[in-house]
Amino acid sequence: MASDLIEYRPGAGDYAYTFGGRPAVRHVRPGDLISMYTEDCFGGVVRSTDDLPSRVCNFPFLNPVTGPFHVDGAEPGDTLALHFVEIAPARDWAVTTTLPHFGALTSTHTTATLQEPLEERVWKYDVDAAAGVVRYHASRSGHTVELPLSPMHGTVGVAPAAGEARMTITPDAHGGNMDTPELRAGVTVYLGVNVDGALFAIGDGHCRQGEGEVTGAAVEAAMNTVVAVDLIKGVGTPWPRLESDDALLSTGSARPLEDAFRISQHDLVTWSAGLTGLDTLDAYQLIAQAGQAPVGNVVDTNYTMVAKVAKKYLTAVGAAAAYDGVHERLRALGRQYLSSR
Amino acid sequence: MASDLIEYRPGAGDYAYTFGGRPAVRHVRPGDLISMYTEDCFGGVVRSTDDLPSRVCNFPFLNPVTGPFHVDGAEPGDTLALHFVEIAPARDWAVTTTLPHFGALTSTHTTATLQEPLEERVWKYDVDAAAGVVRYHASRSGHTVELPLSPMHGTVGVAPAAGEARMTITPDAHGGNMDTPELRAGVTVYLGVNVDGALFAIGDGHCRQGEGEVTGAAVEAAMNTVVAVDLIKGVGTPWPRLESDDALLSTGSARPLEDAFRISQHDLVTWSAGLTGLDTLDAYQLIAQAGQAPVGNVVDTNYTMVAKVAKKYLTAVGAAAAYDGVHERLRALGRQYLSSR
Amino acid sequence: MASDLIEYRPGAGDYAYTFGGRPAVRHVRPGDLISMYTEDCFGGVVRSTDDLPSRVCNFPFLNPVTGPFHVDGAEPGDTLALHFVEIAPARDWAVTTTLPHFGALTSTHTTATLQEPLEERVWKYDVDAAAGVVRYHASRSGHTVELPLSPMHGTVGVAPAAGEARMTITPDAHGGNMDTPELRAGVTVYLGVNVDGALFAIGDGHCRQGEGEVTGAAVEAAMNTVVAVDLIKGVGTPWPRLESDDALLSTGSARPLEDAFRISQHDLVTWSAGLTGLDTLDAYQLIAQAGQAPVGNVVDTNYTMVAKVAKKYLTAVGAAAAYDGVHERLRALGRQYLSSR
Amino acid sequence: MASDLIEYRPGAGDYAYTFGGRPAVRHVRPGDLISMYTEDCFGGVVRSTDDLPSRVCNFPFLNPVTGPFHVDGAEPGDTLALHFVEIAPARDWAVTTTLPHFGALTSTHTTATLQEPLEERVWKYDVDAAAGVVRYHASRSGHTVELPLSPMHGTVGVAPAAGEARMTITPDAHGGNMDTPELRAGVTVYLGVNVDGALFAIGDGHCRQGEGEVTGAAVEAAMNTVVAVDLIKGVGTPWPRLESDDALLSTGSARPLEDAFRISQHDLVTWSAGLTGLDTLDAYQLIAQAGQAPVGNVVDTNYTMVAKVAKKYLTAVGAAAAYDGVHERLRALGRQYLSSR
Repeated sequence: MASDLIEYRPGAGDYAYTFGGRPAVRHVRPGDLISMYTEDCFGGVVRSTDDLPSRVCNFPFLNPVTGPFHVDGAEPGDTLALHFVEIAPARDWAVTTTLPHFGALTSTHTTATLQEPLEERVWKYDVDAAAGVVRYHASRSGHTVELPLSPMHGTVGVAPAAGEARMTITPDAHGGNMDTPELRAGVTVYLGVNVDGALFAIGDGHCRQGEGEVTGAAVEAAMNTVVAVDLIKGVGTPWPRLESDDALLSTGSARPLEDAFRISQHDLVTWSAGLTGLDTLDAYQLIAQAGQAPVGNVVDTNYTMVAKVAKKYLTAVGAAAAYDGVHERLRALGRQYLSSR
Repeated sequence: MASDLIEYRPGAGDYAYTFGGRPAVRHVRPGDLISMYTEDCFGGVVRSTDDLPSRVCNFPFLNPVTGPFHVDGAEPGDTLALHFVEIAPARDWAVTTTLPHFGALTSTHTTATLQEPLEERVWKYDVDAAAGVVRYHASRSGHTVELPLSPMHGTVGVAPAAGEARMTITPDAHGGNMDTPELRAGVTVYLGVNVDGALFAIGDGHCRQGEGEVTGAAVEAAMNTVVAVDLIKGVGTPWPRLESDDALLSTGSARPLEDAFRISQHDLVTWSAGLTGLDTLDAYQLIAQAGQAPVGNVVDTNYTMVAKVAKKYLTAVGAAAAYDGVHERLRALGRQYLSSR
Repeated sequence: MASDLIEYRPGAGDYAYTFGGRPAVRHVRPGDLISMYTEDCFGGVVRSTDDLPSRVCNFPFLNPVTGPFHVDGAEPGDTLALHFVEIAPARDWAVTTTLPHFGALTSTHTTATLQEPLEERVWKYDVDAAAGVVRYHASRSGHTVELPLSPMHGTVGVAPAAGEARMTITPDAHGGNMDTPELRAGVTVYLGVNVDGALFAIGDGHCRQGEGEVTGAAVEAAMNTVVAVDLIKGVGTPWPRLESDDALLSTGSARPLEDAFRISQHDLVTWSAGLTGLDTLDAYQLIAQAGQAPVGNVVDTNYTMVAKVAKKYLTAVGAAAAYDGVHERLRALGRQYLSSR
Repeated sequence: MASDLIEYRPGAGDYAYTFGGRPAVRHVRPGDLISMYTEDCFGGVVRSTDDLPSRVCNFPFLNPVTGPFHVDGAEPGDTLALHFVEIAPARDWAVTTTLPHFGALTSTHTTATLQEPLEERVWKYDVDAAAGVVRYHASRSGHTVELPLSPMHGTVGVAPAAGEARMTITPDAHGGNMDTPELRAGVTVYLGVNVDGALFAIGDGHCRQGEGEVTGAAVEAAMNTVVAVDLIKGVGTPWPRLESDDALLSTGSARPLEDAFRISQHDLVTWSAGLTGLDTLDAYQLIAQAGQAPVGNVVDTNYTMVAKVAKKYLTAVGAAAAYDGVHERLRALGRQYLSSR
């Protein structure tokens, strides 16, 4: 597998705000590494605690993504593998906000009430990459708290099926704004291909995020991100899946939240049954006792749940490597890249 | 207002399967009447009880709509008014089905379970327009039941905001597949305009439908439909609204179903407060005691609820005519058309 | 069937605030008529617009019910039939309120947000039984609206199964606070018996109520109510059902709202299949096109949906009378009582 | 604080199946240690893979709890602290099942569908306390998997408010069947007291459980459990809270699942604000980035979510010890008991 390193830094007008409905910004091939810049979910215009999003942002043009990239050879029915080699904050600060009628502890445009919205407020975090921390500053007192730096991408996806174009803020079967802290460096994401070229895009870097993203925004940051690309021909993937060195993970994005849970668990059960040869109810039983359910987001237009199982429990019953070992190969490619830099 | 009568009958390749992402098939002007043909939700290929959709339909290309039509002068921030003058079944039969993993009394792709799907089955109804009935035939016995013919359109909408394109099966703020029996001849639909020309389309005729559309399909039929078009400049509409001679209706489409209810009630309360000058909580109180909540669908990718209030209760407190009387004008135009035919 | 007329007017300390967990106030027999007084949901202490519930009510002791009544001979597995002969407002006024964190267009203790609650406010309605109207008075202007008087009971139920005692504000399989406008005079309610004597109780009279009871309170009133009691031995009823002269109705109470819808539709489909002999999917099909889904409440601790079908569509396929004709017999008994008075 | 060690082993008829509605089995005092036996959720009658619950169990009498215990001095408005000193499996085996219409990947009595139920099947696990593992055996093949033994109690609660009695399978504000793996030895549970004596009970031991308990049953086991009891006078607790050496945790139990999430996050935000003196939105912000959201159950009559934050992030902003340090005192008492044994 020949591997090119492609550098891509979008200009001001190059960002996408939908998955689907946009031409590719660049062609890449399976095996390529892409080093890209991604802007934060506010388009980089919230830079101080005075920059309220309702004043400085241009709704609905939030959550810009870098891409879409056209993967040569990708066709509907294939699976795209994106391995996140590195996710590095591009600035020494990050921002986050409460937004009017957005978040879990407020009424919203769909959970509509007649109450007044919460106050809109911006918090600015220090990002200290060397120390591996971000620093919270309370807005109404002098308190600070250091939290571990744990970079991730909230948004990754491909063009949806059926000719749809979806706002980047929406997570669904095509990926999108899943906002799961599980999507960090060292992880491979699998996405079912719906259109020729797959047309994937990435954005919404977070220096860290609590589970559920309860305010509606994480520690939002521009990122310098490196991904390795591969393609599994002729193998479909119904909902986005993740693989780390230790675990397999299925996602589901829907409302109400229990449906997101059902999708993710159903996919992990049937995926595990397929890899192990276990009877479906036996796989259901094993996941029920061995599985985890890390919450993604409970704030976006769909909510996201993740179902997770340690690989060791599946290999104990003879599981094959997922997607014929793509993760291990891309992981090695990523390590080689990082060590050669 | 000059009024042209535009006849439009789509060819086989002319149907749309998304709102948004498609060029207009025809330009129309405010004041025009359009006489159009709409195909049924199966694209007309389910014609007997042997035509199982999973065999004869080409998923996800279901629910074809006629259009989109470009309304000259329509701009974001305006409201499009579509008055349904006539909805007439185009054939003397109609069909409906149970679909695997679609409907309210089955697990689905989002309410995912490990159970076997329900049996897929087709029912064919006789349509007797002269008698004003459709005739149900049981599939496993010889029983028949006559039900009132009550034609309606399940799907009407405009291109969505934010560059989105959405499958025609999805109802949301742009309209779409709301599947409410309230959308019958004599009713005006108001839709907020998101893109130049509005780009509206219509489809999914039903000879009748129960509230909730519990099996996932109504008495599905091709229709010959006449609509009158108008435009309210500079006035927005957040969610689709309907107006009949007697009532004002707001819709909400979301999951879970209580959010669809909240959206529709919130819109009817604030709309009523605006028309009457009542304090918001006074309008809330009046709607709470005087309002109805006819269920649309509880099966589509979003569920639809409708909030409805008799106009007489609003005029009792001095309500202005909605949208400055557009409904009455279009109603008169429609009556004139029908009587002149 | 011997029929006694039992008069029962509770004293101040005689009301119940739970279904279950209380001894009977009176024994009755199948065939008896009971004439009872029920207090309003505020216990009668909200008497003017200055009487804010948070000041004058003693939470959680809201929604008093009259009873429980012990029905001689009732055993688990039987069905209790309660026919509502008459529901007459006991006063010439009624009240209603917005409540902090209660209602559909506000956050609540379960749909918890950090927003301020809506203002608590009381509205007092005139009740003109002779004219058949209630009169709304706006709180912030002089406007009034006359709405039809349409008396109903929000709450009727039996002791729950499994040794439970449930607050009267909760609707569930035992009945309770279903808050459906369908429960009016002329209607028979069927409730599955869970404990010896059934232990039914009735309360929460409404002079009228909009569908959904969106503010959380209807036009709340004390009532003089007459019910006729009967017992169907050895026949169970999984969820409360209603029967009018024209229709059969099933209820479901759950959250989210789509589950209440599913329960009610599932029960109506299987009940209809049983009465008609139709194949289950044929009954599903018939209900899907012929059925209605009148919303009960979308505010209580469980939400309530009703599934309704006209009897004529079931008799067209040979349906037997529900519960062997109990409704007709009690209806006749009620008419006889009313005419003999 | 004087501390007695109370040994309590229930006889066959001594178990409770509701919280509330039952007299105390024993009086205890704040400061006491109680060593108790709890039976598994099947009442101990599912002992082999042939013992299908639908045959051997007596519905609805599932999920027996040990108690209730009357805590001397406990009054409404107080908080009961229960510190779990030890949770030890009482047998060398444990069982679990799929149940008809119970679990997350099946339709249920509330998520009602017309589909056939999943097959009912029993799995028996080996429990090897010395090795610290349980052993899964596939039912349709010879595969086994060792999973860590991680004992917990699914059910702990007090008598509910408002005179209610609730099935032990239901989690709500009084505690009950929360089924969170966070409730393990070393953890203190805080429960608001609703009735004199609190009347707490404990049951439903699990040798381990995956997050969500997706099949509806964990690795179910009888337990020998030791708890230390304390009382915080005059301090209320709205929803059950947990405290470990490292973290504070709030629970919420409701449907849909997002409401359980909202309750738990709302409680953790306001609790944290109270302990730290942070402005509410500042606490919201800190929890949003620092918090975790471990899923409890997505199968019971209410779903349970947990909101969790490391104490170190709160002490960094000057947090006081929760409940004035009760956890540390009970932890010390527990350690002393274990070392003295």
